Amino acid sequence: MTYIRKNIQRLAGYVPGEQPKTGDLVKLNTNENPYPPSPKVLEALRGAIDGKLRLYPDPKATALRQKLGNAYGFDPDQIAIGNGGDDILNLCVRAFCGECEKLAYFWPSYSLYPVLANIQGATQVELPLDDDFQIKAHPPLLAKLAGVKLIFITQPNAPSGVWLQKVELQRVIEEMDGVVVLDEAYVDFAADHCLDFAREYDNVIVARSFSKSFSFAGMRVGWAAGSRALIDALGKVKDSYNVSRLSQIGAEATLDDGEYFRRNVRKICVTRERTIDALVKLGFFVYPSQTNFVFARPPAPLAAQQWFEELRKRNILVRWWDADRIRDFARVSIGTDEEMKKFLEATTAIIK
Amino acid sequence: MTYIRKNIQRLAGYVPGEQPKTGDLVKLNTNENPYPPSPKVLEALRGAIDGKLRLYPDPKATALRQKLGNAYGFDPDQIAIGNGGDDILNLCVRAFCGECEKLAYFWPSYSLYPVLANIQGATQVELPLDDDFQIKAHPPLLAKLAGVKLIFITQPNAPSGVWLQKVELQRVIEEMDGVVVLDEAYVDFAADHCLDFAREYDNVIVARSFSKSFSFAGMRVGWAAGSRALIDALGKVKDSYNVSRLSQIGAEATLDDGEYFRRNVRKICVTRERTIDALVKLGFFVYPSQTNFVFARPPAPLAAQQWFEELRKRNILVRWWDADRIRDFARVSIGTDEEMKKFLEATTAIIK
Repeated sequence: MTYIRKNIQRLAGYVPGEQPKTGDLVKLNTNENPYPPSPKVLEALRGAIDGKLRLYPDPKATALRQKLGNAYGFDPDQIAIGNGGDDILNLCVRAFCGECEKLAYFWPSYSLYPVLANIQGATQVELPLDDDFQIKAHPPLLAKLAGVKLIFITQPNAPSGVWLQKVELQRVIEEMDGVVVLDEAYVDFAADHCLDFAREYDNVIVARSFSKSFSFAGMRVGWAAGSRALIDALGKVKDSYNVSRLSQIGAEATLDDGEYFRRNVRKICVTRERTIDALVKLGFFVYPSQTNFVFARPPAPLAAQQWFEELRKRNILVRWWDADRIRDFARVSIGTDEEMKKFLEATTAIIK
Repeated sequence: MTYIRKNIQRLAGYVPGEQPKTGDLVKLNTNENPYPPSPKVLEALRGAIDGKLRLYPDPKATALRQKLGNAYGFDPDQIAIGNGGDDILNLCVRAFCGECEKLAYFWPSYSLYPVLANIQGATQVELPLDDDFQIKAHPPLLAKLAGVKLIFITQPNAPSGVWLQKVELQRVIEEMDGVVVLDEAYVDFAADHCLDFAREYDNVIVARSFSKSFSFAGMRVGWAAGSRALIDALGKVKDSYNVSRLSQIGAEATLDDGEYFRRNVRKICVTRERTIDALVKLGFFVYPSQTNFVFARPPAPLAAQQWFEELRKRNILVRWWDADRIRDFARVSIGTDEEMKKFLEATTAIIK
C-alpha cells in the first residue's frame, strides 16, 4: 500500500548544490553573489526586528510590487512576488500547465524544470539547444511546440552562461500557443534583457530573482512581470503569505540602494572576464558568459569530474553534473578576486 | 485565447483576512498572537543580520528539524519544514493527491482546503460536521471516504474552535486508504494533541505552525511530522530553499525559549475563557474553544454581519464569512486583556 502519487514515487527530486556547514571553503558552486547585501539593506532588516513579526506579512507585497513597478516600468498589477525565483517557476506550472499537458524546456538548462514537470505530472517536451547552446528556431523545432502549454527558457542560459539570441526567442514566442517563461535569474550580469517581450506579448512572463545580483539568496525573493491576466493567475495559485515580512522589507531596501548592487555586478563581470582569460590561457574551453558563472571544459587529459574532485580536495567547491552534453564541463561561480585567485592557483596545480 | 488552466480560471482564490496598514485598529481577525516573539528570538534574528544573507539557506533546515525532533519526540527524518503551515498543506496535496483524484475535508473548516483542491484539479469531497461541529464517523460518512487520497482535518477545528473527539478521528484514520492530515495549527491552545496518531499510523501527518502560539506569523514557518515515507515525499515536492535563513534561525531560537511561549499561551487561554463568559452573559452563543479564537453567535435581533460591521466602524476587526452554516457567527481572535476589554465594551454598546 502506498500513499504517494506515482509520479512523486518515481521522482528523484531536484538536487541543490552543497551548502557546507563549515566556513573554510571557497564556495563557487551555487552562483551566490560574493558580496554582502548593502549596509542599508542590513540596517533596514535590523530596524524591522520587533514585535510586529507576530503579524502576518502583507499577502500582496504591495510596497515591494510598487517599487519594482517603478524601477522596471510596469504597473504593480503586472508584477507577482515569489518565495524565491523557484517559487515563481512553480506557480507558473500550476497556473498554466495541468497534469498530462505538455511542458517544454531546452536542454541543457536549469535542471529544476523537468522536476517541476514531474511533480505536476505534466508531459515533458525536451528541446535541444544547438552545439553553441543556442536556440535554433527552425521548423522541426517549432513543430514540437504544438500543444505545449508552457515553456521555460533560461536567459542567459544556465549552466552554459550564454546569451540566447532574441530573434530566435521571438520566433519561439510567436509560435507558442501557450505561455513562455523567460527565466532571467542571471540577467543583471548580461548586456541586455527581455522585459520588452513581457510588455509586448500577452503570453510572456519574465521571471527574476533577488538571489544573484542582489545578494539576497538567504531571504528568498523572486518576482515575475507579465500581462495582468497571467499575473492574476499566479496570484490565485500562490500561498497567501508566501513572502515573509523581513524578506519584503529587505527587498524594498535593496531596490532603494540600486547603485551599491550595480557596482558589485560590474565588479563581478570584470572578475568573470579575467577568469575566462586565465582559463583559456590554461587551455580550457569556456563559453562566453553573460552571467555570474563560467562553464568550462578542461584540456585533455583532465576530465571535468576529476577537476571538480581535485578542487574539492583543495576546499574549493564548484558544480559538476553527470548528465548528457554537460559532463565534460564544470560550472564555476564568480567569487571575489581573492577567491578566484585561489581557484586559478588550484586549477593550475591540478593541470600540472 | 486563454493561457490559463480552466480550474484556475474558475478559481475565486483564497481570501486572507484583512491586513490593515494603519496601526490604530484592534486586530482580532487573523488569529495572530497578541504578544511579540520572545526577546531571545529577536536577539537571535538581530545577530544573524549579516553578509551571510547572500548565501542560500540550508535546504534541509537540519538544525531546526533536529530541535523539533528533540522537542516532540520524532526522528528528524520524520519532520518536514514549510514556508508556513499553508506550504505544508499545499505540499501534501502535491505529494498525495493528483488531478481528478479525491481530496476530502470537513465543512465548516479551513476555507483554504477547497482552494488547494481546485488548484490541483482534484475532485472535492466535502463532508459535513454535525450540529456541534463534531465528526460523527458513522457508516454513511465512512462510505464517502472510499477512494479518497487525502483528507484534511483541522484539530481543533476552525472556525468553530472545538476539539474533535479523538475516537471519531481514529475511525476516520482507520477507514482511510489514503493520507490523513491533521492540521493542528491551533493545538497549543488545546488540552491535548494528536502527535501520537502520526507515530502510530503510517498514513497520518500532523501539520503545525509557528504562526499562532509562537508569535511568528510574519516569518512563515510550519512543520509536519509523520512516517519517513510520507515526509520523504514532501521533501521531493517542496522548493529546495523554501524557508529563509532568518526564518530558520528565528524558529530555532523559539524552540530554545519554550517557557516564554507557554506562558503567553496560558495567558491567552485565560483571556479566552473570560471573553467567552462575558459574551455568554451578553446573550451570545459561543462554542467551547480550544484555540486562540472564539466563534460566537450574537443574540437576536443582532445579525453576525451587523455585529462585524459595527465593530469595524469602531476600529475593531473580527472575521465574518457569508457562507453556509457559519454566516450567523463571527470569529474573534483572542487579543490582550486590554484589546478584549475594548472589544467587549464595543459589543455591549452595539447590543444596546
